[in-house]
Amino acid sequence: MTIYKAPLDDLRFALYDVLHAEATLTQLQGGEGHTRDLLDAVLEEAGRLSEALLAPFNASGDEEGCKYDKATQTVTTPKGFKEAFKAFAEGGWTGLTQAEHFGGQGLPNTVGTATTEIFQAGNLSWSLYPLLSEGACHAMELHGTKEQQDTYLKPIVEGRWTGTMCLTEPQAGSDLGLLKTRAEPGDNGSYKITGTKIFISAGEHDLAENIIHLVLARLPDAPAGSRGISMFIVPKFKLNADGSPGTRNTVVASNIEHKMGLRGSATCVMNFDAAEGYLIGQPHKGLAAMFTMMNAARLGVGVQGLALSERALQNSSNYARERLQGRALSGPQFPDKPADNLLVQPDVRRMLLTQRAIVEGSRTLLLYTSLQTDVEARGVDEVTRKNAGELVAFLIPIAKGLVTELAQESTKEALQVYGGHGYIVESGVEQFVRDARIITLYEGTTGIQAADLLGRKILQLQGAGFKLFLQEIQAFCQKHAQDAAMASLIAPLARNAKEWADLTLAVAARVQGNPEELGAAASDYLYYSGYATLAYMWARSVAAANASSQSEAFKQSKRDTAAFYFARMLPRCLMHKAAIEAGVGTLPAVA
Amino acid sequence: MTIYKAPLDDLRFALYDVLHAEATLTQLQGGEGHTRDLLDAVLEEAGRLSEALLAPFNASGDEEGCKYDKATQTVTTPKGFKEAFKAFAEGGWTGLTQAEHFGGQGLPNTVGTATTEIFQAGNLSWSLYPLLSEGACHAMELHGTKEQQDTYLKPIVEGRWTGTMCLTEPQAGSDLGLLKTRAEPGDNGSYKITGTKIFISAGEHDLAENIIHLVLARLPDAPAGSRGISMFIVPKFKLNADGSPGTRNTVVASNIEHKMGLRGSATCVMNFDAAEGYLIGQPHKGLAAMFTMMNAARLGVGVQGLALSERALQNSSNYARERLQGRALSGPQFPDKPADNLLVQPDVRRMLLTQRAIVEGSRTLLLYTSLQTDVEARGVDEVTRKNAGELVAFLIPIAKGLVTELAQESTKEALQVYGGHGYIVESGVEQFVRDARIITLYEGTTGIQAADLLGRKILQLQGAGFKLFLQEIQAFCQKHAQDAAMASLIAPLARNAKEWADLTLAVAARVQGNPEELGAAASDYLYYSGYATLAYMWARSVAAANASSQSEAFKQSKRDTAAFYFARMLPRCLMHKAAIEAGVGTLPAVA
Repeated sequence: MTIYKAPLDDLRFALYDVLHAEATLTQLQGGEGHTRDLLDAVLEEAGRLSEALLAPFNASGDEEGCKYDKATQTVTTPKGFKEAFKAFAEGGWTGLTQAEHFGGQGLPNTVGTATTEIFQAGNLSWSLYPLLSEGACHAMELHGTKEQQDTYLKPIVEGRWTGTMCLTEPQAGSDLGLLKTRAEPGDNGSYKITGTKIFISAGEHDLAENIIHLVLARLPDAPAGSRGISMFIVPKFKLNADGSPGTRNTVVASNIEHKMGLRGSATCVMNFDAAEGYLIGQPHKGLAAMFTMMNAARLGVGVQGLALSERALQNSSNYARERLQGRALSGPQFPDKPADNLLVQPDVRRMLLTQRAIVEGSRTLLLYTSLQTDVEARGVDEVTRKNAGELVAFLIPIAKGLVTELAQESTKEALQVYGGHGYIVESGVEQFVRDARIITLYEGTTGIQAADLLGRKILQLQGAGFKLFLQEIQAFCQKHAQDAAMASLIAPLARNAKEWADLTLAVAARVQGNPEELGAAASDYLYYSGYATLAYMWARSVAAANASSQSEAFKQSKRDTAAFYFARMLPRCLMHKAAIEAGVGTLPAVA
Repeated sequence: MTIYKAPLDDLRFALYDVLHAEATLTQLQGGEGHTRDLLDAVLEEAGRLSEALLAPFNASGDEEGCKYDKATQTVTTPKGFKEAFKAFAEGGWTGLTQAEHFGGQGLPNTVGTATTEIFQAGNLSWSLYPLLSEGACHAMELHGTKEQQDTYLKPIVEGRWTGTMCLTEPQAGSDLGLLKTRAEPGDNGSYKITGTKIFISAGEHDLAENIIHLVLARLPDAPAGSRGISMFIVPKFKLNADGSPGTRNTVVASNIEHKMGLRGSATCVMNFDAAEGYLIGQPHKGLAAMFTMMNAARLGVGVQGLALSERALQNSSNYARERLQGRALSGPQFPDKPADNLLVQPDVRRMLLTQRAIVEGSRTLLLYTSLQTDVEARGVDEVTRKNAGELVAFLIPIAKGLVTELAQESTKEALQVYGGHGYIVESGVEQFVRDARIITLYEGTTGIQAADLLGRKILQLQGAGFKLFLQEIQAFCQKHAQDAAMASLIAPLARNAKEWADLTLAVAARVQGNPEELGAAASDYLYYSGYATLAYMWARSVAAANASSQSEAFKQSKRDTAAFYFARMLPRCLMHKAAIEAGVGTLPAVA
């Protein structure tokens, strides 16, 4: 049995002290009401819901899994999932960041990120159902007609229906250009969609009255490859004239996957057998439309890494405090007890501080990036919006790639703190490791994030976002140049930023000469960039803590973790730099 | 469904070309017959058995798991396990490295390590049953009376019975001094053992007629802590006068654990309720007796890391070769196919080469260490034996600690190569990740290995083994100083060895001043030492390949992987050095 308590203090610290979220959000277009009071109330309520209705069903949901009934081709979700979804919908959470004219609450993405962390930490499997809906809503908001929005988007925002994204096919994963699902003209401007989609999260379940699938398929006249893909709305139940679910459409889940983790989330094989669908957006522009949602989706998966890392940390800290085993190297610290607790061991503290540096650094990075998405959407002037958009484009692959990879490490270290007990299912901590293993794979593998960062964001876009981000770091270093309390962080941060810039230029030059160098450098460049980015987040956290009215213990904890990060994690850049500089020559053909 | 083929070519290369195992083994006392011909025949036969009887039941064994029947307190192992154990026993494998006068084959540990890799890669869960028996045999060989050996050891060597090691209790894991199991005098010099042991591998199963438990417990007059622990033989069935299993003893499995992986291995909670037991070895010296088996046990767990990494690599290589997805960065490589395979991606080759560097480097290290255990046992003179023993003592925590941690990385990368498909149980690769997760925990966590390396092997033993190992590396560098084909490896190897030596002195000095510095440096020192050790193994492999009559493709593959290792993995030493130098000040108290 694992514990979970929404980390409201740390969330508030990151939002208000470090990122000045209230000042930023209230100055955005339509953001007047987004005060700290409102946001705090939202966070607290999210915490209550997650702690009471989600967290208790996390382990049982994994144990039970989703049940697929072959006869009816339906999926039953684990105990507690339905009730939680009902409460979630009734609380207005399904529309939290959706526009008010669709029935949503119109709150900033930044708040959505914070509450999503809380819900995902409570129960990651469960959280997939609303997360996929959110993606489908964004797609319809951006690309649907008014009628499509009224018909399909609103009921999802209201939490009566849910949505999916149907992209992957057995032969087409990272390379969607290979997809084969066909769309043929049907009655009244509709299409008949035929094909098989795999890995469809929330493709079938018992939480809602209807499921709206957004499906990528090819029109008869489609060009080959990725430029011949269109997007379609395919409802599970076709609608009656009044908009209520009517006749069953010919799209069914033909099975669910048996997975390493995330077992409460229904991952479906979906068969479309001339299912009725409706074109959304322009013909052959489906992939581009899908990509407009990519940033939100990838950020959301990054948040999953944070959420799992946070919950794993809460439990491993707790275990280390309570488990009595061995004695301190310098003599008993609890002589009246049969043994000292694990916290007296420096190596255990190393594991806990590693997790803490990952958790809090990741949170700051994800909230920082989310705040920029809000500025991009609703900033007061075009330059502000454009700059924010460039920052977002640059930071998304870092945030997704690094945070999900670090979640592998932090959940692994959490389990390690438990010793052999962590390997037992009952401990609950091994589930975090299993659940975490998917997040470096879906919504683009780490390799895909790395290629996006180096190939697209640095090279194709000429590092527009990177330059802005570097300027911001330099300005921060400048601002704190005379700040004695920051001296131990500013010098290495500035050195690291300079090295990052130099390394980027050198890599860019090398790739000009040979495109294969891109693939040889990309992953290590992603890691280097990630650690450099977290260094800035940690330096900002310390500056914010020093300037805040937080307790001395709270401030010291931030300083300690930052010092740990700079001394023991930032040097990972050294090995990534060496690997980047090694070049493609060290990656010859393998048999 | 995963593949597995015993890697005989690589095993032979490591044994004969790199380590000159035949020359070494045939010169040992009683080693005249241990020729290459004999060893090759053993390896081939092990390969056949593993491929035919173990590998096919690896996934199904995980799916099925062990079944515990509460009414009879018995365990049923998965399908295929019984047949495999029968064939294993009939083939004489249960006594492979046991002395001939106990019915064993008296083959060297080096051969045992090679065949154990093959069996563990076939089915790790299954391999736990004979592995635990081997440990129990060693204990009885070293500490039992002749009568105890004849009575309990021989039937295990013959494969009719199996053995266990009963150490851990709920409150006593890494800290065995806390254990509470009591031994009270009984009839005819026997003892009544009472207590609960947890995490007992092979504690109960259906593979053999009897199970011989070696149990740590306290005599009535025992001093507190680790100096008051004695070892007892407790058979599942007490013996009839003719030595056959008779009355059921009062030791039962009261449950089996539900684990993250290794689900075909019965991990039992054992209840001893005044069970009849017999003291083995001296009173109160049980922990020391247990520790005499530690090297073999830890080496065996290191081999588990190698075995899982090898099988994961075989499957991820295969997948990367067959999966068509995307195109090469510099243009299509298979223009007549719908897509190129994954091998054209440098980032995928990076993942495969990482795995290969881990697998082959680990294998050389483990076989090197095993060879030293043979020299330690049967070397021609005392100095030779003593030196080998010091090398073994030094290398065991490195081999166990590093190889098991690297197995986390290599199985993780193997899964990553599969993309989302790797997360599906059906792929088989996620099982390797789950199975691997235990090996950094049992037989001493990585933290315990690190403390053993730095605290005991470096500081207490004044680095005796380290000095010998360094001398060997220096001699190797000297020998190849003028070898142009080795130039790119020798210089960095020599630099790294020098830095390792300097770092060791600096750490030792720091620990003198503050014992807490030991815990602060140990894990990173273990990793640094591990990467430095693998660098030497890789340099030796290249020198051996160059000098061998292997095919040019084989030689080039060794050179490529070594170049990859030196360019992209050895630089990890940089970050570990930084972390070591950061000291205990960066690991303050955490709440």
